[in-house]
Amino acid sequence: MNSAILLIAHGSRRPEANADLLEVARLLSEQRPDLLVETAYLELAAPDIPTGARRCVERGAREVRLLPYFLSAGAHVQEDLRAYREQLAREYPEVRFVCCPPLGFDPRLIAVLLERLEQQM
Amino acid sequence: MNSAILLIAHGSRRPEANADLLEVARLLSEQRPDLLVETAYLELAAPDIPTGARRCVERGAREVRLLPYFLSAGAHVQEDLRAYREQLAREYPEVRFVCCPPLGFDPRLIAVLLERLEQQM
Repeated sequence: MNSAILLIAHGSRRPEANADLLEVARLLSEQRPDLLVETAYLELAAPDIPTGARRCVERGAREVRLLPYFLSAGAHVQEDLRAYREQLAREYPEVRFVCCPPLGFDPRLIAVLLERLEQQM
Repeated sequence: MNSAILLIAHGSRRPEANADLLEVARLLSEQRPDLLVETAYLELAAPDIPTGARRCVERGAREVRLLPYFLSAGAHVQEDLRAYREQLAREYPEVRFVCCPPLGFDPRLIAVLLERLEQQM
């Protein structure tokens, strides 16, 4: 397996919010057994992005796709991910790093929202 | 229509990220024509939550569901929404305000992520 997904969430002080990412990673891995999957957080939780990327490289990845588990492509996310990509490309010149887009707007999310509307937090 | 959805996103400095919310609101409104729909942002964009809630009340809502368009229930989101709900309940004692959960983990999001994996930002 020469390609990896580095699945990236914002990170939260609440462990249960961070735990969602591990479940997402597990399901991605089931759907794409041809790819290594690692997780990282932009802030507030570990591992951070350089650590997650290093794990991909140490497991043999020659291509790492930075996949943001974010709803929108805010300035914060785009700028930070591009800066990390450049930093990682300098550190591991033999590895290709690619930034994928966030979830963005998608009609499939509407079905989920309609369910949440009937629940209370 | 006595019930309203106040659909809430984080807010971004990038107008195109904020514009997603209006499209989500339009689709929610199509699916739930029995509910008023207004939008608001937690920060960085207008209208803010008190303004969005006031619009719901002025349009006649007697129940307002605060529906976060967020992936996870981070501390930031939960605490802020609950504080807004209490503030709004004091300001409009005749109106019921309810906090709905965020999107959270949902397998339907995996299908969207698998598509993003093949795209570049």
